[in-house]
Amino acid sequence: MRFASDNTSGAAPEVMAAVLKANEGYDRSYGADAAMGRVTALVRKIFEAPEAVVHLAATGTAANALAIATHCQPWGAVFCHAHAHVAEDECNAPEFYSGAKLVLVPGDHGKMTVETLSSSLARTGESGVHGVQRGMLTLTNVTEAGTVYSVPEINALSALAKTYGLPCHLDGARFANALVTTNATPAEMTWKAGIDVLSLGGTKNGCLGVEAVVLFDPARAWEFELRRKRGGHLWSKNRFLSAQMEAYLTDGLWLRLAAHANAMGQRLADGLAQKGASQRHPVQANMQFPEWTEGTHARLEAAGAAYYRFPAPPGREAARLVTSWSTTATDVDQFLNAF
Amino acid sequence: MRFASDNTSGAAPEVMAAVLKANEGYDRSYGADAAMGRVTALVRKIFEAPEAVVHLAATGTAANALAIATHCQPWGAVFCHAHAHVAEDECNAPEFYSGAKLVLVPGDHGKMTVETLSSSLARTGESGVHGVQRGMLTLTNVTEAGTVYSVPEINALSALAKTYGLPCHLDGARFANALVTTNATPAEMTWKAGIDVLSLGGTKNGCLGVEAVVLFDPARAWEFELRRKRGGHLWSKNRFLSAQMEAYLTDGLWLRLAAHANAMGQRLADGLAQKGASQRHPVQANMQFPEWTEGTHARLEAAGAAYYRFPAPPGREAARLVTSWSTTATDVDQFLNAF
Amino acid sequence: MRFASDNTSGAAPEVMAAVLKANEGYDRSYGADAAMGRVTALVRKIFEAPEAVVHLAATGTAANALAIATHCQPWGAVFCHAHAHVAEDECNAPEFYSGAKLVLVPGDHGKMTVETLSSSLARTGESGVHGVQRGMLTLTNVTEAGTVYSVPEINALSALAKTYGLPCHLDGARFANALVTTNATPAEMTWKAGIDVLSLGGTKNGCLGVEAVVLFDPARAWEFELRRKRGGHLWSKNRFLSAQMEAYLTDGLWLRLAAHANAMGQRLADGLAQKGASQRHPVQANMQFPEWTEGTHARLEAAGAAYYRFPAPPGREAARLVTSWSTTATDVDQFLNAF
Amino acid sequence: MRFASDNTSGAAPEVMAAVLKANEGYDRSYGADAAMGRVTALVRKIFEAPEAVVHLAATGTAANALAIATHCQPWGAVFCHAHAHVAEDECNAPEFYSGAKLVLVPGDHGKMTVETLSSSLARTGESGVHGVQRGMLTLTNVTEAGTVYSVPEINALSALAKTYGLPCHLDGARFANALVTTNATPAEMTWKAGIDVLSLGGTKNGCLGVEAVVLFDPARAWEFELRRKRGGHLWSKNRFLSAQMEAYLTDGLWLRLAAHANAMGQRLADGLAQKGASQRHPVQANMQFPEWTEGTHARLEAAGAAYYRFPAPPGREAARLVTSWSTTATDVDQFLNAF
Repeated sequence: MRFASDNTSGAAPEVMAAVLKANEGYDRSYGADAAMGRVTALVRKIFEAPEAVVHLAATGTAANALAIATHCQPWGAVFCHAHAHVAEDECNAPEFYSGAKLVLVPGDHGKMTVETLSSSLARTGESGVHGVQRGMLTLTNVTEAGTVYSVPEINALSALAKTYGLPCHLDGARFANALVTTNATPAEMTWKAGIDVLSLGGTKNGCLGVEAVVLFDPARAWEFELRRKRGGHLWSKNRFLSAQMEAYLTDGLWLRLAAHANAMGQRLADGLAQKGASQRHPVQANMQFPEWTEGTHARLEAAGAAYYRFPAPPGREAARLVTSWSTTATDVDQFLNAF
Repeated sequence: MRFASDNTSGAAPEVMAAVLKANEGYDRSYGADAAMGRVTALVRKIFEAPEAVVHLAATGTAANALAIATHCQPWGAVFCHAHAHVAEDECNAPEFYSGAKLVLVPGDHGKMTVETLSSSLARTGESGVHGVQRGMLTLTNVTEAGTVYSVPEINALSALAKTYGLPCHLDGARFANALVTTNATPAEMTWKAGIDVLSLGGTKNGCLGVEAVVLFDPARAWEFELRRKRGGHLWSKNRFLSAQMEAYLTDGLWLRLAAHANAMGQRLADGLAQKGASQRHPVQANMQFPEWTEGTHARLEAAGAAYYRFPAPPGREAARLVTSWSTTATDVDQFLNAF
Repeated sequence: MRFASDNTSGAAPEVMAAVLKANEGYDRSYGADAAMGRVTALVRKIFEAPEAVVHLAATGTAANALAIATHCQPWGAVFCHAHAHVAEDECNAPEFYSGAKLVLVPGDHGKMTVETLSSSLARTGESGVHGVQRGMLTLTNVTEAGTVYSVPEINALSALAKTYGLPCHLDGARFANALVTTNATPAEMTWKAGIDVLSLGGTKNGCLGVEAVVLFDPARAWEFELRRKRGGHLWSKNRFLSAQMEAYLTDGLWLRLAAHANAMGQRLADGLAQKGASQRHPVQANMQFPEWTEGTHARLEAAGAAYYRFPAPPGREAARLVTSWSTTATDVDQFLNAF
Repeated sequence: MRFASDNTSGAAPEVMAAVLKANEGYDRSYGADAAMGRVTALVRKIFEAPEAVVHLAATGTAANALAIATHCQPWGAVFCHAHAHVAEDECNAPEFYSGAKLVLVPGDHGKMTVETLSSSLARTGESGVHGVQRGMLTLTNVTEAGTVYSVPEINALSALAKTYGLPCHLDGARFANALVTTNATPAEMTWKAGIDVLSLGGTKNGCLGVEAVVLFDPARAWEFELRRKRGGHLWSKNRFLSAQMEAYLTDGLWLRLAAHANAMGQRLADGLAQKGASQRHPVQANMQFPEWTEGTHARLEAAGAAYYRFPAPPGREAARLVTSWSTTATDVDQFLNAF
């Protein structure tokens, strides 16, 4: 009954086994390890992107901040949702790495729309040298509200950004969960939908700590490497990152883990609906924000459930519940029984 | 015969076992894991520093850059050896994180002296607002030349810095190796010798990727945490860092691993001396810079030896050889036989 | 009929005469000139602040960015109005100098309120290390909407910020105009109202290019000087800045110039009201945002009027009109006649 | 007898007259003033560079830092002389604006040589992602030692930099003095000699405070403008900068002022030589570093001379003496009489 975050789960057995195996003998350092080449090949195949460049980092904040800094000038505006992780949960890392300004785009359920983005774009960069210039777009999928952008939605937003010549980044800390929800292919949700650079999350979905940054346009690959090193994010024993990512992407493990997490989320949502709980946002992946009547927190926590409480109107209580690759049906059912 | 770097070795079995064990069940994220508390307790005990604050990062560059940024203002000078890792091998990460300027202090065999530091200190910060201000001192032990500062040497340098009120950092990427060489206690080589903040390396000496930053003065601990997060170096699944560091520091593993690496270095140096090779710097830990006669590279590499070639005078060849926790006596002897 | 901005005016005769006089003979450089001492004495007397430290810069953006950087950490939030000059018109200079994040506080007519600030403060800094920390408050008086905070309003906002221990900055690019409107003393509108640091504008109100940063708490004065130099804003021939500021503050010139500018603004607003124009914001100083019926732009511009057009609803036209120390009653009346 | 610095002089009458004249009436702000267009035309004509872009800033540190930031990436190395103004006298402004690292190139008398630059270039950027990359070259003419690079010397150094594809900057805080010494044309000393961007100083040579940055390659002009604004260096009343620069460059004023300053320097050097003083560096422009016997300082200062003392060997005294456009032959002769 541990629903605080998918990052309170450990690593999947396949990933851990790969780390163990990677420990045999000597290997070249700083990304020249053999597994890193295999990771690149896997990503290129899975994303149908034979020229994509792949680099690893250990945290999602690093992946996002480096991806943004590589695609936006210090006098640029990064258009992101008002509650995006880059805006609220990274303690200025994107600004630190890029020097740019985040422009907060509103939108219900964690998603910007063509209308809200269009309005933000129109209001920015219209005062010549005095204000920041339009710089780039960054979307998050799965969003911070647990909702999922469809491929057509991504396409529409990136197309709008492209009318201003802006590169598009996708924060995919939960990318696999979004793929599972939409049934899209990795290519369809990224470069075919106008995404130029992807933070491909592993940590939350069964790895120890690894994210891949996928640059669909290799032109900025060397700059990315220099920025990564300058940020202290280049591992000497990179094999321990590449081993994770290789296992994660092999034989569809990443999608199986995400499918399980999403299914557990749905089971939880279904059960909560039957109990009369409401949801603040549509439940589309592995994170949900239910509301229920007062007194429920006490019962659930007494039974051992762990999750974040959220503010709620009088008489109500609210929560964030996150399921993961390691959530069991028993966990869910015990939670529902304790409700 | 893999002597390219101690970072081409893997992780020690005890460390890997701890990572495996840490994977059981759920744990709190972002440093609130149980093992992190134990790491802090271990460091405090081993360093006889009951108020020290300990934070982990995955790379040595991150540890150094964060430690420096936390102790030096953007208009400050960081006094470091001219060939220090922070100066030559971190692609401006210290400057990126701190905004400060590195002032390169000369000195033979990778070590600054009271004379060279004194001269650099005297020449800096003497022009009021026009130049950078004296900011901090950073030493490296083991140095980039494979030599080791003795405790009295550290004391003398930090005392000099303290006459200007400067905080002192020790880059201890190979701190355990330096302890073994000098037979000093951790406390003697750090806070008792005027060191305010230590980068305590684990990666090169048997871990997968973990460094501890030990702040002997807890006053700047919260700032350090914010800087770490802003740099993208806070792990969500921090348990996989703390597990490594806990195992590393338990029952003297770190010192045993370093003692072995140093012993292998000495065995190698002794053998090379018998073969007529000279050394550029005194061999005092696990890294050496031998010179030998032309043609030797070809023989050694044909036999399968791996290491970095260095420029050498005509008729001579030079190399950097690094031994590690996993180097075997057989490795060394095969190398010597192939010489 | 030049109402585009108060910065299209030149310098007042008294200021220009002082610059001419300052040119006699030799003087010490980098702020050690005799006039600089007199400027400090004047500011201390006028603001009843015997310990205040005063430094000059040539642009308002520099004054603001330096003041903010000196009072907010790189992981801090700077609470400012959503349309503040620091947010919209300085091309990221505040972020560049400070590393901090601007948090945009809403509010009608260019003014935040206790309610909107309170709400922004409550939502920020509540997620530990993950988000930015509450850093400082910055107000603008006269606001970008041409309105003026009263002293009690400033007091209430700064008091709220102080409950969180935050320092308060006042962007006074048009500070003299705000004083004239409120009839407050300089002390009442600044340190007596909780302001810790003031950007005291000269450029828009009759100088060539000079702003004073007044630090009511001298503790950060040296840091300010270093930041100014590091930003390239320390003048070698500082006498040409101090001469302007000395003349500006002598014998109430600054207030006379501002009183004239405000009076011309009122004359213009009165005339426009008689002609049936409406105002988007209350007209309280020397900047106004009238709306009028379609076709008026063409008539005014044909008559030689210069000002910025603003977007307006169908059938309407909108403008920004700024009066200055050099606007004449004839200018205003000609404009009204051409209406 | 004011020889402390050329920045203790005021502005030349022609420049001050232009500032007065610029004050008439209204003018467009932020660089759209009429005089700015004339400045650009003048620079293009004088430098025989019809596509050059010209922007103004008020300080030399700003001009240098902005020029460097526009031509060097944050992971780049800026090759400069070990005692360059950018290295010693700008409190990290170049690093603050660019993020880059200054690599200090040695050389006698303030000048790097093909040999020393070649050696610095060869040692930098050879370790892949681990170290900074070769970024750009910056020369200073007149140097900080008061010596002057000849055009062939500049050509040789820039040609060497170009073999690595590096852009070249010339810090011309005393550019006019260097032109006078060498009798070179502005074009010969800049773009024809491989210089891509010039800081063209006005302040030290008869202006109040103005420097022009001349971008011979217009490709980076817009970036420069954004960086200038973001640094707070864009003046609203830019006419007061452009008026200075226009007068300065009109009818050869800048060269006449510099010729006078150089001539006064020579007169002083000749007189000192007759008195038995030695010179640390060849006297080639308006700044010299004489050494003389103990007791001379006291006599000179008693007579009212002002200048900087420099450290000297026992029994000797040393000084820096700077002449300017306003130094008179009487000043020089009185100084020599007091010797």
